[in-house]
Amino acid sequence: MRGNSELRPLSMEIGVQLHADGSCLVKLGRTHVLCAASLEERVPGWMKGRGTGWLTAEYGMLPAATHTRTDREAAKGRQQGRTVEIQRLIGRSLRQAVDLSALGERTLTMDCDVLNADGGTRCAAITGAWVAAALALRSRGLEAALVRQVAAVSAGIVETGEGRRGPVADLEYEEDHLAAVDCNLVVARPLAGGEAALVEFQGTGEGRPFSRAEAEALMDLGLAGCERLMAAQREALG
Amino acid sequence: MRGNSELRPLSMEIGVQLHADGSCLVKLGRTHVLCAASLEERVPGWMKGRGTGWLTAEYGMLPAATHTRTDREAAKGRQQGRTVEIQRLIGRSLRQAVDLSALGERTLTMDCDVLNADGGTRCAAITGAWVAAALALRSRGLEAALVRQVAAVSAGIVETGEGRRGPVADLEYEEDHLAAVDCNLVVARPLAGGEAALVEFQGTGEGRPFSRAEAEALMDLGLAGCERLMAAQREALG
Amino acid sequence: MRGNSELRPLSMEIGVQLHADGSCLVKLGRTHVLCAASLEERVPGWMKGRGTGWLTAEYGMLPAATHTRTDREAAKGRQQGRTVEIQRLIGRSLRQAVDLSALGERTLTMDCDVLNADGGTRCAAITGAWVAAALALRSRGLEAALVRQVAAVSAGIVETGEGRRGPVADLEYEEDHLAAVDCNLVVARPLAGGEAALVEFQGTGEGRPFSRAEAEALMDLGLAGCERLMAAQREALG
Amino acid sequence: MRGNSELRPLSMEIGVQLHADGSCLVKLGRTHVLCAASLEERVPGWMKGRGTGWLTAEYGMLPAATHTRTDREAAKGRQQGRTVEIQRLIGRSLRQAVDLSALGERTLTMDCDVLNADGGTRCAAITGAWVAAALALRSRGLEAALVRQVAAVSAGIVETGEGRRGPVADLEYEEDHLAAVDCNLVVARPLAGGEAALVEFQGTGEGRPFSRAEAEALMDLGLAGCERLMAAQREALG
Amino acid sequence: MRGNSELRPLSMEIGVQLHADGSCLVKLGRTHVLCAASLEERVPGWMKGRGTGWLTAEYGMLPAATHTRTDREAAKGRQQGRTVEIQRLIGRSLRQAVDLSALGERTLTMDCDVLNADGGTRCAAITGAWVAAALALRSRGLEAALVRQVAAVSAGIVETGEGRRGPVADLEYEEDHLAAVDCNLVVARPLAGGEAALVEFQGTGEGRPFSRAEAEALMDLGLAGCERLMAAQREALG
Amino acid sequence: MRGNSELRPLSMEIGVQLHADGSCLVKLGRTHVLCAASLEERVPGWMKGRGTGWLTAEYGMLPAATHTRTDREAAKGRQQGRTVEIQRLIGRSLRQAVDLSALGERTLTMDCDVLNADGGTRCAAITGAWVAAALALRSRGLEAALVRQVAAVSAGIVETGEGRRGPVADLEYEEDHLAAVDCNLVVARPLAGGEAALVEFQGTGEGRPFSRAEAEALMDLGLAGCERLMAAQREALG
Repeated sequence: MRGNSELRPLSMEIGVQLHADGSCLVKLGRTHVLCAASLEERVPGWMKGRGTGWLTAEYGMLPAATHTRTDREAAKGRQQGRTVEIQRLIGRSLRQAVDLSALGERTLTMDCDVLNADGGTRCAAITGAWVAAALALRSRGLEAALVRQVAAVSAGIVETGEGRRGPVADLEYEEDHLAAVDCNLVVARPLAGGEAALVEFQGTGEGRPFSRAEAEALMDLGLAGCERLMAAQREALG
Repeated sequence: MRGNSELRPLSMEIGVQLHADGSCLVKLGRTHVLCAASLEERVPGWMKGRGTGWLTAEYGMLPAATHTRTDREAAKGRQQGRTVEIQRLIGRSLRQAVDLSALGERTLTMDCDVLNADGGTRCAAITGAWVAAALALRSRGLEAALVRQVAAVSAGIVETGEGRRGPVADLEYEEDHLAAVDCNLVVARPLAGGEAALVEFQGTGEGRPFSRAEAEALMDLGLAGCERLMAAQREALG
Repeated sequence: MRGNSELRPLSMEIGVQLHADGSCLVKLGRTHVLCAASLEERVPGWMKGRGTGWLTAEYGMLPAATHTRTDREAAKGRQQGRTVEIQRLIGRSLRQAVDLSALGERTLTMDCDVLNADGGTRCAAITGAWVAAALALRSRGLEAALVRQVAAVSAGIVETGEGRRGPVADLEYEEDHLAAVDCNLVVARPLAGGEAALVEFQGTGEGRPFSRAEAEALMDLGLAGCERLMAAQREALG
Repeated sequence: MRGNSELRPLSMEIGVQLHADGSCLVKLGRTHVLCAASLEERVPGWMKGRGTGWLTAEYGMLPAATHTRTDREAAKGRQQGRTVEIQRLIGRSLRQAVDLSALGERTLTMDCDVLNADGGTRCAAITGAWVAAALALRSRGLEAALVRQVAAVSAGIVETGEGRRGPVADLEYEEDHLAAVDCNLVVARPLAGGEAALVEFQGTGEGRPFSRAEAEALMDLGLAGCERLMAAQREALG
Repeated sequence: MRGNSELRPLSMEIGVQLHADGSCLVKLGRTHVLCAASLEERVPGWMKGRGTGWLTAEYGMLPAATHTRTDREAAKGRQQGRTVEIQRLIGRSLRQAVDLSALGERTLTMDCDVLNADGGTRCAAITGAWVAAALALRSRGLEAALVRQVAAVSAGIVETGEGRRGPVADLEYEEDHLAAVDCNLVVARPLAGGEAALVEFQGTGEGRPFSRAEAEALMDLGLAGCERLMAAQREALG
Repeated sequence: MRGNSELRPLSMEIGVQLHADGSCLVKLGRTHVLCAASLEERVPGWMKGRGTGWLTAEYGMLPAATHTRTDREAAKGRQQGRTVEIQRLIGRSLRQAVDLSALGERTLTMDCDVLNADGGTRCAAITGAWVAAALALRSRGLEAALVRQVAAVSAGIVETGEGRRGPVADLEYEEDHLAAVDCNLVVARPLAGGEAALVEFQGTGEGRPFSRAEAEALMDLGLAGCERLMAAQREALG
């Protein structure tokens, strides 16, 4: 059995989407997310003429990515609330990686599509999207706009079930289901050197409220987990 | 000037919506939110036959609630991502207040509509919604289903501007705009007695990442602020 | 019991929406409508370059405003036919109050949101919106664009039930339900002096057709009722 | 030139839609509306089990029916406010023609589609829809459910332009454009014998408010015009 | 009984839509389609500045055109897949009739609305739309932009039922229902002289796959049928 | 250079979507489509109680699958016409593979999502979907419901450009762009033995009309190409 702070087996394959400016297929156990970065020479209307760029993100799940088939959002004509919430989180997180002034009047769009879902898809999406963004900026000679490395991991407090117990990192779907408390942590480290710090901490007591001590234990797990993810990101970029 | 941990002037008026099972107009400075609770004898299709109830929340802003008029979502035919994110937060938070089994096959719908927006509307909505929910359950003889008191407050780290500096509680719009880091904290305390604990902690480094120490300072402010809000909630309920 | 031509207790509170250019919370018995006027320095695309302005209106009901909760239109992604019909009526009526050429290339948007519904919400909305519009124009030094005072009242013919009978003014929900014939009258009076006259007369025989004599009796009630509403409007404006 | 109270040349052709339970192509000058009645053995969910029926109406315009092409509502994914308002008027009007209890648990759906628009399309739709409804009920042996004859005509007060002046009946598009006041009148007469009376009177002062005397002159024109339309309806039914 | 290669009785009436630049009501047996062409002095955004024009098509069915009433797409807020597929086919087919460079920066919009449906509506729409397009171009002095004559017919292989058997042209609804294989053929002939050739061939084995020989038999029927339709088109244009 | 009848390098990887009942990632040159089959124990409402099943298909493209990023349909709230047309084609084609009576009251949903697009995505989707469907039926002991093998290929007539000329099979995006005529062929072969035959032939003369001889040449290419695809399908299934 995995240790409480251990992540699932991890791989990152780059260049999977042939037309994208950057792409990365991230696999964390049975969670597989395809991330692409597209750099376009335009900004949204409300940003025109300011000389700075924008970064936005979209998230989706293939209908067959889940245990029982999920309705296709394009066919229903409406994104679910969960989807909207996740893509806002990805966008906010990745905007911490990029210096939008250095980007110029360009938009970097991150597309994160889940091919297989087994818990932690939003965190895997952020981690993979950072690799795709880095590749896209490099391929266009805009490395200078990349100012922080960003990764994300989930953690939670599991009180029942047969597997790991207590505060554990990188929850699978089954663990997530059993967790009394779960959270998503996004961590950033300046590329110019310096400490890793939190970009987002979203902790939720779905089963019961949680104490400050528990929140701190989850932060510890998250910061450690992101260290390991960041090593893998650097390796994927070569 | 307000102290860093001081909340804005606060009032809660109950019974404002005449047909609702419970309602509360909460004012926190210039942020005014009208909260209503409607108890219906039905549950969503996927819950039928389980003998337990459901609680859901919707959030809206009157178009003229903001500094420049906001488009009416009903007219645009689509709720904004921000709206969706907020109403999911309100729902999750209030579900910690209610024992859904004790509710029986009923749905409690919380409607939170912002009449005036000056920062912290989602927290004010949660705080007011708890009062409305308590009134609704009381009016229907279902007090036993109310198991925790729930309140919420925002906090942030302000580094520029002329007013409060450092970690401050209950941000106004102008402060929120200047904050490098901001967060929303939802706190619950068991009605049967016991410690207050966190239900949600959502911290975001919009301006820069934040350290664990900063996260802890914000939690301190939030827990203290919710203490004061909970006293006001009890007073409003009489 | 109220007399047949008597209106319900009436109040108008101004300045309720802090950011609006003008606002008025009108209460007519248990019908409460919050009206706001927002003046923007733009006109719709099809009006650009003509040098004249535009006035448009939107109407909504808070979900808990009605006896049993109404679905939120923003969540359903579509305004009901009734809503669309009402906001068109409010817009047409208020356009009779304003000289659009004197307004210049500006748009005055009226938002009328029902907090509590007990019959006559569209008429209350028109009456309150006129006050909000007058405040907005005054606050921007555009009083000259206000050329007529506009108010509205409902009337109907009630044949059954325990309360008022025959042609009665200002129907409550219960009376409206019992009325064989009902109508909405919008009345305007030139601010420069002159007779009040009709802007809209919409009479509907839901229960049975109605004679010309009945139509005339309803007009009498409406003109008289609007006199009283106009006195209250002037008082609210101070 | 037509007299002030004179209608445009009128024809009604029945049986134009081969599958409809009843259909009528009504031509009033250059305004051509195709009306169909479909009788289905079902009622809306909220009416089930009451033993009574329902009548509803839908209205549309072919894109090329107007002087400059109008966007197709099906392609835009949304009906215009004007469309919604008109189809509600047609439905209310025709429900006065039918005894819904005698209809049984059936729905009569009226489809009114404008092939050519030159003013007065909603009135022509009502007049033609009544013929289609009568044919549908007759073809299914439900004549007993038809209790009133219903027709509609527009009228207005024209003050400028080269044609008719003053209160005139049955406005063409060009006259409607010039009219200071216009209205739509729907009239019903019991089939069992008795006086014609008003079902709807919708008068609007688009150019200026109108007096009670003017409202009465328009009612006179409308009642007289509907007399002539009702004669033509009876002739069309043979 | 009709011969296997015989078309249904055919008529084309022009000028039916008074405001359209060109219109044609085509009747093929009990299938009646009203086609209009509107020529507007604009092109879609993505075509601006190229000096060439565009042709697009929209298709609809009146709700009462079918045996049992079809829901109105405008009311549902969404066009069916079948509708979208058909209007794309009409557009592609008619673009073969027009030299878009000779059209200049104009858009020719074809509206095809089915008044009565008895099989073959998409083919009738193409055949009638060509007449409407020719009239529109003629009325604006743009005959030079019309370079090919275009018509369409359906064909299929019927194996059961009491009527025609084997490969048959111009299927009625009942035959279409019984056909194992059906297809739609669009044929074009250069106006400057030359052979007729295929613009579209869409063959579908709904009941069973079909051989190459069968495909060829259907093409023969289609080419012959379109000859006859083209003669009728020329006659309609005078 | 590839020969005119030669297909692009081909691979099929099965089991890529872990939760799907069957899945296949088909790669044809730089066109990569992920196909999944989900078998659910329900049928659409209109089919209930007939004892037979249903097969339906949905198609999508990841936004970064194309040369310049395509808008996400889920975010726009509407599928494009092209998408709708393609998913209808996939559904019709695959329904020829399955005996719906032998399926029982179950629905087989095919999801075809394009990861990389370089021409021929709809044909690759059909070819891959057949493999996914076969796997799904096999995994549920429903092999008997699979009655035909189905594959699809594109072909076209290329007249310009530097590569292949004349009638060519399996067009890349660049060739498709240059083709005067293109078509999609779907071919089926009975699993019980027998000849391959056409399920769909869709030929379009986008650049110019095409002769019967050209149509026949394209059919030859298509039938031969599908032979080779069917061999690869059998190999993928092992």
